[in-house]
Amino acid sequence: MRYEEWQLDKSSPVPLHRQIYEYMQGKIMNGEWPVGTRIPPQRELAARFQVNRSTVVYALGELAANGLIESKVGQGTVVVNNTWNLLAAGPAPDWNRYVRAGAYPPNIQLIQRINQAEARADIIRLGTGELSPELLPSASMQEIIGKGSGGHLSLGYSEPKGSRFLRETLSEYLRSKGIFASPSSILIVSGALQGLQLISVGLLQPGSTVLTETPSYLNSIHVFQSAGIRLAGVPMDLEGIRPDAVGPAKRQHQAGLLYTIPSFHNPTGRVMSEKRREELMKAAALERLPVIEDDVYGDLWLDAPPPPPLKSADPQGLVLYMGSMSKTLGPGLRIGWVAGPEPVIDRLADIKMQTDYGASSLSQYAVAEWLSTGRYEPHLADIRQKLKLRRDFALSILQQYFQDMATWEIPGGGFYIWLRLHVPIPVHQLFEQALKEGILLNPGQIYDRHDRQHLRLSYAYASLHDLERGLFRLAGMIRAYR
Amino acid sequence: MRYEEWQLDKSSPVPLHRQIYEYMQGKIMNGEWPVGTRIPPQRELAARFQVNRSTVVYALGELAANGLIESKVGQGTVVVNNTWNLLAAGPAPDWNRYVRAGAYPPNIQLIQRINQAEARADIIRLGTGELSPELLPSASMQEIIGKGSGGHLSLGYSEPKGSRFLRETLSEYLRSKGIFASPSSILIVSGALQGLQLISVGLLQPGSTVLTETPSYLNSIHVFQSAGIRLAGVPMDLEGIRPDAVGPAKRQHQAGLLYTIPSFHNPTGRVMSEKRREELMKAAALERLPVIEDDVYGDLWLDAPPPPPLKSADPQGLVLYMGSMSKTLGPGLRIGWVAGPEPVIDRLADIKMQTDYGASSLSQYAVAEWLSTGRYEPHLADIRQKLKLRRDFALSILQQYFQDMATWEIPGGGFYIWLRLHVPIPVHQLFEQALKEGILLNPGQIYDRHDRQHLRLSYAYASLHDLERGLFRLAGMIRAYR
Repeated sequence: MRYEEWQLDKSSPVPLHRQIYEYMQGKIMNGEWPVGTRIPPQRELAARFQVNRSTVVYALGELAANGLIESKVGQGTVVVNNTWNLLAAGPAPDWNRYVRAGAYPPNIQLIQRINQAEARADIIRLGTGELSPELLPSASMQEIIGKGSGGHLSLGYSEPKGSRFLRETLSEYLRSKGIFASPSSILIVSGALQGLQLISVGLLQPGSTVLTETPSYLNSIHVFQSAGIRLAGVPMDLEGIRPDAVGPAKRQHQAGLLYTIPSFHNPTGRVMSEKRREELMKAAALERLPVIEDDVYGDLWLDAPPPPPLKSADPQGLVLYMGSMSKTLGPGLRIGWVAGPEPVIDRLADIKMQTDYGASSLSQYAVAEWLSTGRYEPHLADIRQKLKLRRDFALSILQQYFQDMATWEIPGGGFYIWLRLHVPIPVHQLFEQALKEGILLNPGQIYDRHDRQHLRLSYAYASLHDLERGLFRLAGMIRAYR
Repeated sequence: MRYEEWQLDKSSPVPLHRQIYEYMQGKIMNGEWPVGTRIPPQRELAARFQVNRSTVVYALGELAANGLIESKVGQGTVVVNNTWNLLAAGPAPDWNRYVRAGAYPPNIQLIQRINQAEARADIIRLGTGELSPELLPSASMQEIIGKGSGGHLSLGYSEPKGSRFLRETLSEYLRSKGIFASPSSILIVSGALQGLQLISVGLLQPGSTVLTETPSYLNSIHVFQSAGIRLAGVPMDLEGIRPDAVGPAKRQHQAGLLYTIPSFHNPTGRVMSEKRREELMKAAALERLPVIEDDVYGDLWLDAPPPPPLKSADPQGLVLYMGSMSKTLGPGLRIGWVAGPEPVIDRLADIKMQTDYGASSLSQYAVAEWLSTGRYEPHLADIRQKLKLRRDFALSILQQYFQDMATWEIPGGGFYIWLRLHVPIPVHQLFEQALKEGILLNPGQIYDRHDRQHLRLSYAYASLHDLERGLFRLAGMIRAYR
């Protein structure tokens, strides 16, 4: 038996408002909603319980009448009493003060909204940067772990840089991309995001600046800003970041690092050309500007493999190379890696040990098994084929419904189509309207805060049926703004 | 094929110094040791390669003669050139500067030494706070995941608070301890350490203070200090933390939180009595001082179950309760949980999403399977029996070799014996000497920086044979100091 999240029992003889009253009273009385807790707005409660707002109002009224909650100007409705206060020696601690006191800033509000909406089962996610559940190899995963190729699963802590077996396996895998990284220069991280987090606190001072493409995935995460680091944009064109702009940007901002996604850039889907890669490496060397190369989409080419990674032509040790299993085997594994100069890897490993003692050894084991038993490549081939089908389908839908109001490029890999609308749109309004109609969007603004004209579409997540339905409805909404 | 960490080939016709030269040259030429990298000391290199120091000196001499490395006053031997510099437009970036620039402080040096030594296969670990590999259920783990009780393994991202199935399962498990926490008031974390890290940046301001027992595990980790938070000690006795000292300490330091391990305290092994728990909760309520209750050892009682957790008598929502699978199923899973007031859990979940997008879904699935299929309890019973045997064995060895120079209490559960030596000892000297003789110690100083008289022994990790050998040798070393 499990204790599921509470739900109204509509078949019960107990009136609905009474059930809600008792549920909230329980939360208050057992300390889950301590004194000072803000009660969610009536509208939100009504939606959560799927009842009329008047039912919620009635229940709240009873709680207020019994002195448990109170409406306070500027604060909404808050818990003021749980009767234990009367028995206890003093009032409860003011948790709201604690929640506000913490140094770590809350997430970007639009991202918080997206995170919350993703928990809804009924929503069509048109921009989600993950493989659809139907593309994730859950059954093979269970089989591979269950069988085990022999003796490497350890449930103990792994070494500071991560499982040695996995690092040896990755060293071999990276060599197939032209990257020579010995196991001691590889750090296993709990997803590439954690790699960035470690870099932000391990290699940079608060107040320093990181350069990145405009637009960039990096603007959608808060990780550098949370460490007090600024982001500055460098323009990009169809071939990728503009190398001639790197030097001036570095000098203008006294930037400490450049972050780039050369292959199947997020959100534009673009691939940096081979020539451009050479130029970028030259510019970075000239400026003594280290580069974070994010290559999490590199394996997901649909038409032709991208040029070799920057890291494959980096004898000076300029590049911190990041990869991940999140986009190919499953984000839930939380396994990524950073390869780079050993003193840097040592430093990041030390911080990782201080924050979470390393990545899941079960996940590390699973990834090593996929790679070392030769099952990863066939899996990739399968995913590529399915993604290509999805991409082509999405493009055909766009052709059908968006031709007169947007342009787009054909991505050669990865997950994304960077839809450029002919005219700017009120981003927040569209986002909220779409959400109301059951469609979750990733507005371009997330990736470039000045943007009012793009949407990041993903053909990786929604089912083909949902993609079609969602894009059709979206077209209608956008058309209304013209 | 995998690329294993490089090793000398002693059967090769290539001279050893030449092999070392080529290995280091390779590291320098491919950017793993960029210009500016400090070469490890000769003694360390000789130990790593298991050769005479003169062989190392010869190889380093060749590298220096070829202009690749140079001895610099105050810096040791550093890489000064990798020949690519001559071709490249400018010198390589100064990674050392980056490594020093990062805001995050490096780990406590003694802890770094311990982390490194733990990678050595030949060492007897007398203080390690983990279950021995032979006690970890690797085979059952593979079987349980391989079989699967049905359809819950998802490789996608989980919800911000963690897998709903696991949270529901934990809600039920916590109820068996008298704790009423609905799934929405539980956060899954990547081990309890991460829970503390989230609290440190999410609920406290830099400059604030956390109270804890003296000694405490909390002093061995750097997590609060890294967030700019101070620790202040509260004295403890045989019944646990002294409640009468909590109020004065809170007021003296204007402390924001109290951290405590009521059951099988780390490092003393003590259990807070039921009466003491009541007094502590009263004192905390009176002072409006929230409490972090670390209960990671609670399931590991050997003689009798400990009193119910503080959280089981907390209707005011004063307590953040932390548990983990690290001490029972395996630390490599990296699965722990925090249960507490919903606004607090929401805040911590938001930060977790920003730093690593959640814990491994594979690990979460595994833990939920162990709990929900009823296999966790029998496993605990088995572990308890084996730990009890180990404890009794360790106590008998102590009786034999340490009776004349130390005292100790009999721990009722957990992993630790807090050995109190009759006379203070030079901690660092003993630590280094023991390490040289293949024994890794956890000096009391790690848990209380003023301590010179304790060692934390663990009967959980070393084999019985190693425990006996290690303690015998340790007794000899300590005797020499008298």
